[in-house]
Amino acid sequence: MTTRFMYEAERPMAVYIAVLATFDTKGREAEFVGERIAALGTKPLYVDLSLDGSSLPSEEPVHSPGTGDRSLGPEAKRVAMQGVVDNAAAALLPLVKDGSLRGLIGLGGGQGTWLFAEIAKRIPLGIPKVLVTTLATRAGTYLEGSDTIVVPSITDIAGLNGLLREVLRRAAGAVVGAVAVASYRGAPQHAAVTAMTMFGVTTRGGMALKSALEEAGLDVAVFHANGNGGMMLESLIEDRVVASVAEWTTTELVDDLLDGIATAGPDRLRAAGRAGIPQLVVPGALDIANFGRRDSVPERYRGRRLHEHTPAATLMRTNADDMRVLANSMAAKLNASIGPVSVVVPERGFSELSAPGGPFHSAEADAAWIDTMRAELHSSIPFSTHPHNINDPEFAAIAARAFLELLPSTSV
Amino acid sequence: MTTRFMYEAERPMAVYIAVLATFDTKGREAEFVGERIAALGTKPLYVDLSLDGSSLPSEEPVHSPGTGDRSLGPEAKRVAMQGVVDNAAAALLPLVKDGSLRGLIGLGGGQGTWLFAEIAKRIPLGIPKVLVTTLATRAGTYLEGSDTIVVPSITDIAGLNGLLREVLRRAAGAVVGAVAVASYRGAPQHAAVTAMTMFGVTTRGGMALKSALEEAGLDVAVFHANGNGGMMLESLIEDRVVASVAEWTTTELVDDLLDGIATAGPDRLRAAGRAGIPQLVVPGALDIANFGRRDSVPERYRGRRLHEHTPAATLMRTNADDMRVLANSMAAKLNASIGPVSVVVPERGFSELSAPGGPFHSAEADAAWIDTMRAELHSSIPFSTHPHNINDPEFAAIAARAFLELLPSTSV
Repeated sequence: MTTRFMYEAERPMAVYIAVLATFDTKGREAEFVGERIAALGTKPLYVDLSLDGSSLPSEEPVHSPGTGDRSLGPEAKRVAMQGVVDNAAAALLPLVKDGSLRGLIGLGGGQGTWLFAEIAKRIPLGIPKVLVTTLATRAGTYLEGSDTIVVPSITDIAGLNGLLREVLRRAAGAVVGAVAVASYRGAPQHAAVTAMTMFGVTTRGGMALKSALEEAGLDVAVFHANGNGGMMLESLIEDRVVASVAEWTTTELVDDLLDGIATAGPDRLRAAGRAGIPQLVVPGALDIANFGRRDSVPERYRGRRLHEHTPAATLMRTNADDMRVLANSMAAKLNASIGPVSVVVPERGFSELSAPGGPFHSAEADAAWIDTMRAELHSSIPFSTHPHNINDPEFAAIAARAFLELLPSTSV
Repeated sequence: MTTRFMYEAERPMAVYIAVLATFDTKGREAEFVGERIAALGTKPLYVDLSLDGSSLPSEEPVHSPGTGDRSLGPEAKRVAMQGVVDNAAAALLPLVKDGSLRGLIGLGGGQGTWLFAEIAKRIPLGIPKVLVTTLATRAGTYLEGSDTIVVPSITDIAGLNGLLREVLRRAAGAVVGAVAVASYRGAPQHAAVTAMTMFGVTTRGGMALKSALEEAGLDVAVFHANGNGGMMLESLIEDRVVASVAEWTTTELVDDLLDGIATAGPDRLRAAGRAGIPQLVVPGALDIANFGRRDSVPERYRGRRLHEHTPAATLMRTNADDMRVLANSMAAKLNASIGPVSVVVPERGFSELSAPGGPFHSAEADAAWIDTMRAELHSSIPFSTHPHNINDPEFAAIAARAFLELLPSTSV
């Protein structure tokens, strides 16, 4: 690791807040933040994210030491930026693990915001992360999947002035304040939370399941299955923050398959199996792909069954072919699980819309998923179907029982 | 004012951090935040933003007390939401003024995020504002024009759980930490900052002007004239944080006129005149309207002179007609100023692109602006043209002199 560190003399003895910035353009501002952090009683650990040679390994092939980033072509620049991210993560993660790094604060314009976001995604959730950015209105999309606190810089980060000093002073106060109260201290926490996925059209049954699990003594956190929620969930499972998961709503897989807007990526539904935590799986809202305004639905789907949820949200019913593909890929993921899994299926519709009589009712498409799943799922995984819609209270009770049976008896 | 306040018994004696949420759905979570704030030594002041009758004036015509928001139609709901914003602002602003309210923290989903954003925009910049939101990826657009710190809620804000408790604990720590170091204490600060507007194609000259002003002892803050920057600037002038302004780049007015993407609204260039602060005005980048990808340029402009800045940014040259409209509206705004104004004009192009030989060079269009401005501007306002491009160092020196002459001799 060779991303440049400064002022780290006393490292093994102290706890730190890392200050990340491209020091070639934002060094003075970063040092101002570090001084504020020091004045508040915590040591700053400076990490230089500049793309110039000084902050990259000398063996880095993309450019020779001292070459400024302006001379790099787009591809070389991309490689250099990725190198900075890798170096910084490699330097910081051991300090997180040994408990000496308690928080991060970054300063960035366009480039610095991207660099910080990529680094932040590699640092466990729970470690306070604060980013002062000139791009506050759209930094959220860069930062998706991290728990970074975003502070708008108000003015450009291009020289200290009275306004920027005040913004930086408050940001330093915020990160020190968050670090002071954070319970995460580097060592893996006792994962005590049960995660649940929910969506508008699966909410009624979902709330019944949540109540049942809470009555059984579980601490339940709900994630909206809107793409962002699923990504966050997978990431929290990887960080071992989630102890068990009730996948009430696996709809994000549909959007990943059909290019809908609520995809959580192709790796959705993998983390729990890899982590070996108990996992209940219900095909919640697999009847639905999500699009925006009606004219945003891709041309190839114009002949499909569409439902205008609001003027800004158009839903599309999945067909039997989609369902077979979905069942195949879900079965493969679940078959690879190293922990306990159970699949429970509501035969009378996977969402509010596909109950008998509903606009998305399709016994044929649902049966395609059920039959494929039954055929492909490993025989050691319990699989049961029930004559209910997903939102029937009886079905929630069945799902709750199936889920509780997966848990080690001590965990409830 | 009748937005519901709780626990305000000792108000006149203490300092507070306000905790804002729709208590009908997020009351437990808000109280958890308030308890954390109290544990850190500051008193919480709860503000209920629920739309139901309890938090709205009984004389409010849109619904009777106790009517939940779900029964409201869209228009009535809009009125009710605006009422909540007005009530909360009316309640909080006097507490900001007398120095007892030191910060705000809000919790929100879709509705709560909008309500908090509208309230935050009315609270002076510099008062720490923190929002915990389920919509972190797009909250930035709601919050544009405020200095709110955004904390992603990770899970839904629908019941406390181990994860959400940790997020709320850190958010409470962040707002208390920011309040502890904030210099703003309610009373108007001594406005000591000189604001400057800049843009990529006016940067070379802008940096020369900035250096000259800093050499003269001014504390200069740069705002990117990209829509967001201009809105922020107008808002800071209204809050009396800015002492003087060098409008090097007034290009946002073009985008407001021609439906470009970098508009700061029709009121851009009004605040300084109303506040009576010294104001230098240069027609920086008035040659340019900003659009996204080439296919996003409105149909009616396809025959205009276009320049592909990057694949994602298409610029359009303003014509003489646009320039006359712009000059008329700018002259009207400047004529209404109650403080000193000076207009200096680079005759050889208002940006890098419209220098002689550049892709946007148009002596005719520039002359249309110059002639209209000269004719419409009140004779008491100094107006001078110079045989330079905006980025020539000589022009920056001229502009610096003109600006420094506007300042009271004590302020430098």
